[in-house]
Amino acid sequence: MRAVQTKRRAGRKPGNGIDARSQLLAAASELMIEKQTIDVSIVEIAHRAQLNSALVSYYFGGKEGLLLALAMRDTGQAVHALEGLMSMPWPPEVKLRKHIAGIINFNFRYPYMTRLIHVLLRDAASKSALEITRGFSEPVTKAQAQLLKEGVETGIFRPVDPVLFYFSVIGACDYLFWGRSALEFVFGIPGVDDSLRRAFIDHTVDLLLRGCLADPTRTDV
Amino acid sequence: MRAVQTKRRAGRKPGNGIDARSQLLAAASELMIEKQTIDVSIVEIAHRAQLNSALVSYYFGGKEGLLLALAMRDTGQAVHALEGLMSMPWPPEVKLRKHIAGIINFNFRYPYMTRLIHVLLRDAASKSALEITRGFSEPVTKAQAQLLKEGVETGIFRPVDPVLFYFSVIGACDYLFWGRSALEFVFGIPGVDDSLRRAFIDHTVDLLLRGCLADPTRTDV
Repeated sequence: MRAVQTKRRAGRKPGNGIDARSQLLAAASELMIEKQTIDVSIVEIAHRAQLNSALVSYYFGGKEGLLLALAMRDTGQAVHALEGLMSMPWPPEVKLRKHIAGIINFNFRYPYMTRLIHVLLRDAASKSALEITRGFSEPVTKAQAQLLKEGVETGIFRPVDPVLFYFSVIGACDYLFWGRSALEFVFGIPGVDDSLRRAFIDHTVDLLLRGCLADPTRTDV
Repeated sequence: MRAVQTKRRAGRKPGNGIDARSQLLAAASELMIEKQTIDVSIVEIAHRAQLNSALVSYYFGGKEGLLLALAMRDTGQAVHALEGLMSMPWPPEVKLRKHIAGIINFNFRYPYMTRLIHVLLRDAASKSALEITRGFSEPVTKAQAQLLKEGVETGIFRPVDPVLFYFSVIGACDYLFWGRSALEFVFGIPGVDDSLRRAFIDHTVDLLLRGCLADPTRTDV
């Protein structure tokens, strides 16, 4: 109890406690989007947050701790939304459609997230890998497997391997958001704006849903 | 002419000329596969090749030059194979099937390539970005657009946006090969072996081809 109080007090002093923690996460997120890479330094993050870089160690124990906290902050919301979706009384094809749209919206908002999660999973023995697996990867893969299974049971989907499907969907929904480079350079499109986001959702949902349908001539799903 | 001769002669001296260049590229490729990242240092590459690290500057002008040479070496073969495929008298759905299998086989062999190309495209004003665009991205996107167009003309495909399709296909074929992390951790699969490679080709071709078909109940494509 004393330790917690001391930490709170000390936390308030150098950077306004919980606000400083949030500011560091927001600064890291902003920089990753602007620089189109997850390679941002503690010094840059602290500078952007207008806080002392020692606070990164103070609140997160170091850079990996900050990266993990950022991933858990954002994926936590996404998994909460997915759990809500799964609890709805809708047919599996409707849930899968909304799930795919949800992944694309998530990548639109946090275009660095798939690469951040990958880096945190790299060392299988780490605390980060365990937290990301339990908090994000497992709930997402279980939900997808459940939707594919329900779809086969209702006759709307053909049997599709849920493990391979996970890699197809995450990859297909992610690559557009890697950065402006290929988009701008190869196609002359300066970045993913809201209209492109919506077009990509329609395109991806159509492509992947039709790919799973037992009778893909149906146009009513 | 004199400059070329001087370079050749000097090249032979420090590291057996063209062999040293190939050895450095092979070492970089090996390290990227083993470490599951494209962040490998010149010192590591030279050490693996059992050559002096100064040869990286000598042959490639620096690390970016080495990364570009590696990307051009491997994508050059892939684009050559794609051009061969496009010249065959086969229907578009057969070519698209073989093209998707080709991308997966390419990623299986060079699992770092999509990320390497992304990094080389990051600086739009660079020589690397121009070479990658002209040598790889443009031929691939043109071939895909051509196949989608031919498929609509023969009635086998519905209209699919070729720009969005490019990002779907590259992403869907790539994420499985990012590294062992998600595979091993979330699904208990130690890595992509030959049997998984073949299963992933069947799965991806089915998913994406059916997603494009005007009448996806066809099972003969």
